[in-house]
Amino acid sequence: MTRPYYSQEIHGPYDTYDLGDFELEQGGTIRGLKLAYATFGALSPKKDNAILFPSWYSGTSKILEQAYVGPGRALDPSKYFIILVNQIGNGLSSSPHNTPQPFNAARFPRVRIGDDVRAQHRLIVEKFGIEKLALVLGGSMGAQQTYDWAVRFPDAVARAAPIAGTAKGTAHNQLLVETFIEAIAGDPAWDGGWYADQAAVHRGLRRHARLFAASGFTQDLYNHDIWRKLGFSSRDDFVTGFVENHFLSHDPNNLILLLTKWRDNDLSRLGGGDLKTALARIKAKTFVIAIEEDVFFPPKDIAAEQKLTPNSELKTLSSLWGHLALFGVDPGYNERIDAYLKELLSAS
Amino acid sequence: MTRPYYSQEIHGPYDTYDLGDFELEQGGTIRGLKLAYATFGALSPKKDNAILFPSWYSGTSKILEQAYVGPGRALDPSKYFIILVNQIGNGLSSSPHNTPQPFNAARFPRVRIGDDVRAQHRLIVEKFGIEKLALVLGGSMGAQQTYDWAVRFPDAVARAAPIAGTAKGTAHNQLLVETFIEAIAGDPAWDGGWYADQAAVHRGLRRHARLFAASGFTQDLYNHDIWRKLGFSSRDDFVTGFVENHFLSHDPNNLILLLTKWRDNDLSRLGGGDLKTALARIKAKTFVIAIEEDVFFPPKDIAAEQKLTPNSELKTLSSLWGHLALFGVDPGYNERIDAYLKELLSAS
Repeated sequence: MTRPYYSQEIHGPYDTYDLGDFELEQGGTIRGLKLAYATFGALSPKKDNAILFPSWYSGTSKILEQAYVGPGRALDPSKYFIILVNQIGNGLSSSPHNTPQPFNAARFPRVRIGDDVRAQHRLIVEKFGIEKLALVLGGSMGAQQTYDWAVRFPDAVARAAPIAGTAKGTAHNQLLVETFIEAIAGDPAWDGGWYADQAAVHRGLRRHARLFAASGFTQDLYNHDIWRKLGFSSRDDFVTGFVENHFLSHDPNNLILLLTKWRDNDLSRLGGGDLKTALARIKAKTFVIAIEEDVFFPPKDIAAEQKLTPNSELKTLSSLWGHLALFGVDPGYNERIDAYLKELLSAS
Repeated sequence: MTRPYYSQEIHGPYDTYDLGDFELEQGGTIRGLKLAYATFGALSPKKDNAILFPSWYSGTSKILEQAYVGPGRALDPSKYFIILVNQIGNGLSSSPHNTPQPFNAARFPRVRIGDDVRAQHRLIVEKFGIEKLALVLGGSMGAQQTYDWAVRFPDAVARAAPIAGTAKGTAHNQLLVETFIEAIAGDPAWDGGWYADQAAVHRGLRRHARLFAASGFTQDLYNHDIWRKLGFSSRDDFVTGFVENHFLSHDPNNLILLLTKWRDNDLSRLGGGDLKTALARIKAKTFVIAIEEDVFFPPKDIAAEQKLTPNSELKTLSSLWGHLALFGVDPGYNERIDAYLKELLSAS
């Protein structure tokens, strides 16, 4: 039951790697787990120029490519072998909507960030023979994966850049994500995940999109009509045409799987319940990057974790686009993030 | 169809004033408009010690009394004649749920902040013979009414204190309020306002409560378990036991009427479309008060309006309870707001 949106036409070209049956942290198995990924540039003979960039919530490798990869950018394919990997549940990798019954839709097993990272590690080792990544980076849920990588496989990560995300979700972040989940799951058409057609759940998807729009961007974005830069004609035209439009393409079960993974992320599990113990395992040179206006992952929470991270520096940047500056819509953000990433990549 | 919640037992004692048929700004008439109000203290022979305090969203005169009125407080009944007035639609004054058919429920006409203020002015003049109020103050939607009072009746307001609210809603504020409206109206049980029983709409009311909880308080309130001060045992215990519990008592049509009034508030209408022109009419000595952590009405937006307000000062205070510090739950807030109000009341 492939959706047109989750396709090579829209998100490709990408490859897939079949990991076979994959057991999950919380129990359960994904049969024939497939990770979708896209690569740019060439792996050096020493295999020391690889960059891994996992996807964020509702994003795929395509938006990572469009927003971060290119000649002259920090992620320059003429210098680096860049692997953009799609997290489990994002619609290109194994997901509720593309899994055969009986484990499809509402029966897709629960996945944690750590499952993604273990699967990505196998991709890196088995497919490419890479022992150490020059850089792991990611934004939002990608930052969750980046932290997990640096803690779980400390010898495999030379540098790390978690951007606008945390190693452990705060109580407020969990509450916020629950409102996103309920926005979809509260639509009677969702039907416990057993809807026949994703389009029937459009009210829930639209409601979810509007909650995202209200807190994902800054208040100034609306109060000073910054959305005009994208060519929209009114505030509502922007929210419907940009934010609703984005989420209407997605499968509701996929989104709920991702949101649950986001909400339950807690790297302190790798430190026997203590986050400081977990983060102390990190060996990578790390830039912890925060967006000053971020409501999803406020700078204060990010700074608190940076203090627990060995060999790290806190880097901040500002954008009227708030958390969703990650999407690459703000040239100012793009310039600053590239400068930080170039500085990190040149550090030994 | 009186709800037990909207009763003298819970919110009294209060009186009601019947204004007869009352025509509204946007057209339509409320037949036999009743304003519910509670008074404390005695009106001086010169009638120069009266304070008017209109209610905020989902509040009544009872919470204003509990949080702000008492011996030694700024609003001290031994010094002042304090009139706590319930805004139209709050469940004690005329509202969708207590209006006889055919103008009940979904057919209750649209009300603006200016309608409330015109009705309150008649109460003050006709019932009490007061020509000039020593102070008009209010928080949130009460601040909207306070600004409207000072602009609409500049000679009737000696002092004004809009707290945590604006004279004109920002685009972001409107978007946020729309998510609150949709949280209720998106519940199929709401049925366009024609539900037979408000309890049937509990899913929408609960959803609305959780959106309110996620942005009304600060992130720190959740991240540092500040809610424990109210005796709750977990984050979810607090959100359900405090926030859902509050809104479950309310009539959904009443809440939607109030939210629509909140969203559409725009005092620039009194300045021919220009807010500066409207605010320039104010003659009152005004303290514009902002809560630093407020997400509903950010200090930046409040400060911008203060600059347009003649004879005004910007006063700020801080609370981990964010916007909802207005409720009186934070002793630190209560102390600061009293100090500001006493300073204002002693100004000539």
